Amino acid sequence: MESELSEERAAFLARDYSRGFIQYCQFEAESVQRGRFQSRVHIQPHHRQQDGFIHAGVMATMADHTAGYSAFTIVSEEYQILTIEFKINFLRPGYGEALICDSRVIREGKQIIISESEVFDVTGETRTLTAKAMVTLMAVHKDRLSRKG
Amino acid sequence: MESELSEERAAFLARDYSRGFIQYCQFEAESVQRGRFQSRVHIQPHHRQQDGFIHAGVMATMADHTAGYSAFTIVSEEYQILTIEFKINFLRPGYGEALICDSRVIREGKQIIISESEVFDVTGETRTLTAKAMVTLMAVHKDRLSRKG
Amino acid sequence: MESELSEERAAFLARDYSRGFIQYCQFEAESVQRGRFQSRVHIQPHHRQQDGFIHAGVMATMADHTAGYSAFTIVSEEYQILTIEFKINFLRPGYGEALICDSRVIREGKQIIISESEVFDVTGETRTLTAKAMVTLMAVHKDRLSRKG
Amino acid sequence: MESELSEERAAFLARDYSRGFIQYCQFEAESVQRGRFQSRVHIQPHHRQQDGFIHAGVMATMADHTAGYSAFTIVSEEYQILTIEFKINFLRPGYGEALICDSRVIREGKQIIISESEVFDVTGETRTLTAKAMVTLMAVHKDRLSRKG
Repeated sequence: MESELSEERAAFLARDYSRGFIQYCQFEAESVQRGRFQSRVHIQPHHRQQDGFIHAGVMATMADHTAGYSAFTIVSEEYQILTIEFKINFLRPGYGEALICDSRVIREGKQIIISESEVFDVTGETRTLTAKAMVTLMAVHKDRLSRKG
Repeated sequence: MESELSEERAAFLARDYSRGFIQYCQFEAESVQRGRFQSRVHIQPHHRQQDGFIHAGVMATMADHTAGYSAFTIVSEEYQILTIEFKINFLRPGYGEALICDSRVIREGKQIIISESEVFDVTGETRTLTAKAMVTLMAVHKDRLSRKG
Repeated sequence: MESELSEERAAFLARDYSRGFIQYCQFEAESVQRGRFQSRVHIQPHHRQQDGFIHAGVMATMADHTAGYSAFTIVSEEYQILTIEFKINFLRPGYGEALICDSRVIREGKQIIISESEVFDVTGETRTLTAKAMVTLMAVHKDRLSRKG
Repeated sequence: MESELSEERAAFLARDYSRGFIQYCQFEAESVQRGRFQSRVHIQPHHRQQDGFIHAGVMATMADHTAGYSAFTIVSEEYQILTIEFKINFLRPGYGEALICDSRVIREGKQIIISESEVFDVTGETRTLTAKAMVTLMAVHKDRLSRKG
């Protein structure tokens, strides 16, 4: 575990956040601190279900990925983060123009890291908690990534 | 609850499966029976993470949405299905050329329906279980959808 | 949903908390407010595992039952509360002389209520968060309890 | 990981199962195979809630502890098993004279082991699935137990 987060590392993690599937979903990092990571997505028609609600999968993907990056803020650069499992409750339907996800580490282990993600539905100035997740993550040294377990 | 699933309803659900975010993710229905729903996605670069693994969010979205459609097969047409919560364990990384999701209803309630989803990583003829989810769903009459709860 | 909690009802819930298995486990109510319930157990040898840690089942039972009573504080007297599901993360082993559980409602629905429980390990004046749970509950009218679903 | 389970080790695990809180709850091992563990409890008044249903905490404790012992069957004797987290769905109320819990390892990792537990309500010859859990476990070498994480 690292006890501080350098500006350089924070900037790297913010850029690194939006690649692959996450870039395809148009999620972007908003703020990065040690043990905490926030992200945002501007909602477009392809984030919704047929009935206009924001799809649960959008919220779940955001909750998982942002939790993973909150864990990246407490480990050194040689470590990758893998999701072991997560659980998400959908508290009320999301309708809004954006989602913000706020993830915090609640258990700092050397290997097992646990984060919580709160997903807020944003309309104008109003933020409403729409989903909440608990995410179990594992820090794996890059050299051992192929031998996970 | 409906005790049978008509061919017409099964065909409707198979088409209805791929809309909004799910269409954007390119997931498609594969087979539909009463209490069971299977889907598939051909993996493309935008389904992966930076390290080449299939993103956990892809599996989670598929596990949730396919579980939801397994619940649709046991309710009558006036009901919508909402996800209350789900939990997913990632058993081993997914690398393959496709994912298949197989969802089954394990509790048929009038309101509360519980389904399990198994996500398989497919390479050639080989299928490997890569993730497993338990999903709690709620059947809500269309007329009450805005008053959920 | 009830918008207030009478003193009489709070006192009833505090007494009602400790019956059956919960009485056998020696858990007791500590404080009751609308949407929040706290409980305590003085740890004895039979709450531990062979290695001296407090058993995960003790924490899970306390997290579930106290969450259920937090839900009781927001419904009227004709409703019973059933647990649909819960998920609990064990953040660090519990060794102490007591556990305190603090449960709060985070979603007030007419039927579906979601609460979080935090379980603290207590030694002298020190409280350490040892486990955290998310609990999905259902309010069922007493007349319909046998027809749950 | 051990590829076989000796009779001696199986007998040890069956005895070891019922200690501390588990002995207090009167749960007993029923059968032990590599990757699988079954347990039983004869239901007494102190396992119930005030309304006569078997308490959710009884099922959760059994699901967790039996899953842990299914993991013990695949590791060598120098390893202890800790529960990282679990999630349990209550499918229907339990009323019966006994519970049986059947736990199976679904992911064999060197460190992270995932098991499923099915809890059956038993009345006469009838077994009904009453709860199902997914449990994330960690194998920790005895020498490192105090430095978990």
